[in-house]
Amino acid sequence: MKVSEIDNMAFESLLYDFYGVLLTDKQREVMELYHEENYSIVEIARELKVSKQAVYDNLKKSDRILREYEAKLGLMLSLLKSRELIGSVQDRIDELMKSPELTDDGEVKKGLLEIREMISGLEE
Amino acid sequence: MKVSEIDNMAFESLLYDFYGVLLTDKQREVMELYHEENYSIVEIARELKVSKQAVYDNLKKSDRILREYEAKLGLMLSLLKSRELIGSVQDRIDELMKSPELTDDGEVKKGLLEIREMISGLEE
Repeated sequence: MKVSEIDNMAFESLLYDFYGVLLTDKQREVMELYHEENYSIVEIARELKVSKQAVYDNLKKSDRILREYEAKLGLMLSLLKSRELIGSVQDRIDELMKSPELTDDGEVKKGLLEIREMISGLEE
Repeated sequence: MKVSEIDNMAFESLLYDFYGVLLTDKQREVMELYHEENYSIVEIARELKVSKQAVYDNLKKSDRILREYEAKLGLMLSLLKSRELIGSVQDRIDELMKSPELTDDGEVKKGLLEIREMISGLEE
């Protein structure tokens, strides 16, 4: 997914993936049901035996906390942009490997494969 | 600097660079004097008109907070390893560009230069 194509819901899920460990257990439990299990607010309220309002407030608060972390650290956006760039670099390497200038057993083609392999380690 | 070569003091400074925005203004002020200005604890105490013990406690607390963020998020180590890997990829590209298989005006050499440029955007 391109950074420019991330909608608000996907952004909230990504924030949760990224900074979720910084929330309390209770906040994580609600976020987990909402973003990972795709429960509705009504379903979460039933599951946890609390009011819909309590679920809503909990989600809003968690979302605000996660956004504050990202506003201060900006690490998530930076990582997403890096991944996008890594994808472009890999595409460019794939293109180059098809060049008629190169032979299959030449050092450049082997080197390009090696670089592609090294770069894939950056995607994690 | 290689990840394996980072000593404890450098590690604390890096943690501060990375997560320092999450500290309070007061904690940041002390960390700034210690890690950026290289003041001693005695000098900080004099500068801020507080006891040496207060400075020491403040530094210890900030350090513990920063380490907790890194223990939970692990983003700093991951970024440092990425930078190290990017450096290796750039070195490998530089080597390949010297290959006698390539000509200066060929598409592969131009492509390698372009990839090198793209990758340098990952270092920030």
